Amino acid sequence: MEAKEIDRKMIRPSIPSGSRDFSSEEVYKRQYIFRIIKGVFEKYGYQPIETPVMENLETLEGKYGEEGDRLLFRILNSGDFKKDISASEFAESTAHQLIPKVAAKGLRYDLTIPFARYVVMHQNEINFPFKRYQIQPVFRADRPQRGRYREFYQCDADVIGSDSLVNEMELVRIFDEVFSILGITVTIKLNNRKILSGMAASINASNKFSDITVAIDKLDKIGLQGVRQQLTKNGLSESQIQILEKFFSLTGEAKQMLNEAKLLLIDSETGLKGIAEVEKIIELLDISGTTKAAVEVNFTLARGLDYYTGAIMEVKPNEIKMGSIGGGGRYDDLTGVFGLKGVSGVGISFGADRIYDVMEELKLFPATTQTGIKILFTHFNEASLNYSLPLLQQVRVEEIPAEIYPSSEKIKKQLKYADDKRIPFVVLAGEDEMRTGKLTLKNMQSGEQQSLSIEEIIQKLK
Amino acid sequence: MEAKEIDRKMIRPSIPSGSRDFSSEEVYKRQYIFRIIKGVFEKYGYQPIETPVMENLETLEGKYGEEGDRLLFRILNSGDFKKDISASEFAESTAHQLIPKVAAKGLRYDLTIPFARYVVMHQNEINFPFKRYQIQPVFRADRPQRGRYREFYQCDADVIGSDSLVNEMELVRIFDEVFSILGITVTIKLNNRKILSGMAASINASNKFSDITVAIDKLDKIGLQGVRQQLTKNGLSESQIQILEKFFSLTGEAKQMLNEAKLLLIDSETGLKGIAEVEKIIELLDISGTTKAAVEVNFTLARGLDYYTGAIMEVKPNEIKMGSIGGGGRYDDLTGVFGLKGVSGVGISFGADRIYDVMEELKLFPATTQTGIKILFTHFNEASLNYSLPLLQQVRVEEIPAEIYPSSEKIKKQLKYADDKRIPFVVLAGEDEMRTGKLTLKNMQSGEQQSLSIEEIIQKLK
Repeated sequence: MEAKEIDRKMIRPSIPSGSRDFSSEEVYKRQYIFRIIKGVFEKYGYQPIETPVMENLETLEGKYGEEGDRLLFRILNSGDFKKDISASEFAESTAHQLIPKVAAKGLRYDLTIPFARYVVMHQNEINFPFKRYQIQPVFRADRPQRGRYREFYQCDADVIGSDSLVNEMELVRIFDEVFSILGITVTIKLNNRKILSGMAASINASNKFSDITVAIDKLDKIGLQGVRQQLTKNGLSESQIQILEKFFSLTGEAKQMLNEAKLLLIDSETGLKGIAEVEKIIELLDISGTTKAAVEVNFTLARGLDYYTGAIMEVKPNEIKMGSIGGGGRYDDLTGVFGLKGVSGVGISFGADRIYDVMEELKLFPATTQTGIKILFTHFNEASLNYSLPLLQQVRVEEIPAEIYPSSEKIKKQLKYADDKRIPFVVLAGEDEMRTGKLTLKNMQSGEQQSLSIEEIIQKLK
Repeated sequence: MEAKEIDRKMIRPSIPSGSRDFSSEEVYKRQYIFRIIKGVFEKYGYQPIETPVMENLETLEGKYGEEGDRLLFRILNSGDFKKDISASEFAESTAHQLIPKVAAKGLRYDLTIPFARYVVMHQNEINFPFKRYQIQPVFRADRPQRGRYREFYQCDADVIGSDSLVNEMELVRIFDEVFSILGITVTIKLNNRKILSGMAASINASNKFSDITVAIDKLDKIGLQGVRQQLTKNGLSESQIQILEKFFSLTGEAKQMLNEAKLLLIDSETGLKGIAEVEKIIELLDISGTTKAAVEVNFTLARGLDYYTGAIMEVKPNEIKMGSIGGGGRYDDLTGVFGLKGVSGVGISFGADRIYDVMEELKLFPATTQTGIKILFTHFNEASLNYSLPLLQQVRVEEIPAEIYPSSEKIKKQLKYADDKRIPFVVLAGEDEMRTGKLTLKNMQSGEQQSLSIEEIIQKLK
């Protein structure tokens, strides 16, 4: 049995389902996306923080609903994890009841709760409004499927301690600028939680607010009839559904839509406040300058997240059918749960994995994402190795990435190495070259060979 | 009880001991170190890979010795983690025995084993020699203390599938170049596991090889007398100890030391092979060019790692008393445990946290690590906000990081925000400015104010 297990290990090492290895090419492409997002965040005055992968479970639990608690990865306590559990307690308790006795830490589930925790812990060192960004992996014990991983990166920017709508406007601009640089044509959708509340209130169904938003959020997926059916199932009357339908069938030019919605929300102070906020964001956008992305108002946008209290935003690519590749919104009192009350925040998040897929599918990655090694020195024997080593250093001094094949293998094998690694130039230093000081430089793409001094080669590569 | 717990949470959110939050300033400084290491790795032909934070426990267990197994963080299985354990089994088993039933995944303990696992899993896509680097966090359930964390970054470069000593030489150069760019004066120490084996053989104590290396590795810490005592305790005779002492009291110029050691190892083929390898690395270094760092041979260097089979290297800062800030060596057959035999590798690792501490203590971080926001637009009221928004975008189009204070607070508060965030320039746009188009630009350091057009401001900031 022992031996068999070792054999099995020997044959197939593997990684946990829902997790991934990234090859160099993938790392370079992912870094390209992160670098652009990071660059724009910083251009807009956001600064990075980092939090640990492990958080105390008391920080994480109860923050993501029952479903979220179920999806937390928990760390088994080190040492004798069963020491606090008696045999009878074990027999009589559910796994859920025993969790607090065997695990005190969990893996970061998102970047928002750790950020809230950070703000409260460091409130005396922080200057408000606090504009931070964070690009780190998060972990969810979700069922893995195409495009859904158990370990994936989030890229968040949030500002906390300011309720000015200038923030929302700037976050829309960040979406606009990032996707414009990446070359993805997008539509940025705007809504406001207060409008959704107003809609529920206007049909006297505030108690069914959650059901309503869940249903209409699915309009894209299940269509009008699907939404109608679900609302009926939720106990809404035909006349209530008809009024709702008026809202979510409003489309087209933002100002027009907002004016029409105002009439429908005339009796809801909250709803009208939501309209005014969306109007203000659009006005600020207009003042600030044109956007490349289409900015649309969409009254069905809810993003299923309970904690949004104001603006709701979502970004979808235009040229490809895919879920949102960015989203965000305003949340009041996020830090309240950690004891810091009355601090309003607004933030956005980029879906790096989906953005990667879009870029691959639309072939948007530039050929130069890879930090290329520019030149490989080959050698035939020890003499040509020794001759090449100082030349290699001369190239590197000029900040040109360069390497030497480590042993005197057949030249064919060394050239194959360059080919596989997509190194564009190869230096051959045989006896003639060593005598004359003129090296043979082979262009690996064209096959062309030139006889050049090391200075000339450096000049050519720079 | 429930209420009390919530209260406690509200008052003091915390993070697990041994883990850290990083402020913007710290992130920038850490990124500065990583960027330089990464840049040199790439210049030498190493390319990045990334592996998941979570690995299967069968990948990790048994690879780091008993101590390592104890220090692994394990993930509690999701769902009903106790379903495979009967009540009687629970009562009769130790925690250690139950681990396989409650945990199948663990957190990455280092980057070397995941790299070996990666090489075996992806062997058909990889071109050998495979030169990869990896900069990611690792996790150890060690007792936290000053400078020792439970979650910390490793920065590794390894080449696998080549036994040429050119690799060792280049890795020494990478150490040299990184620390030279960082401004840390260092000594790079070289040794070879085969020399250590030869030493043990030459006193007929090959069976005590491990004890001997552990003891002499501590020479720096416990001194000659300490080492002598420990060796005596390990059962070595006075005459054996005297011969060993001859080895580890060899110091000075490398070639001389190696020649003297050769005489001592005359009967050990392995030992002489080790000497020849160190000689070759030094010869290759000489051919390749001078190093800024001192490169020393040190026969007491063992680095306590069982898996090194050839070269052993270590880097220490000269100007400050501190443990090693880099190390590495050659290991044969690292991937053997995963079923891929006969692949030799050599690699190095940078100790990012210690490097950070050295840089702080010697004040080596440049003032410009921080990606600075260059300018803050302030405003007095809605009119001046609206006037400023398009100007702000004009500045950003020029890739100048810029922001606007989000609300029309008192100017004093806005200026304090700029001060706290170390933003060097502030724009004031009051009624006069709006009328004339000449903005007031305030230099926050000197207090000096100038009246400039937006174009002039952009020119000044670029």
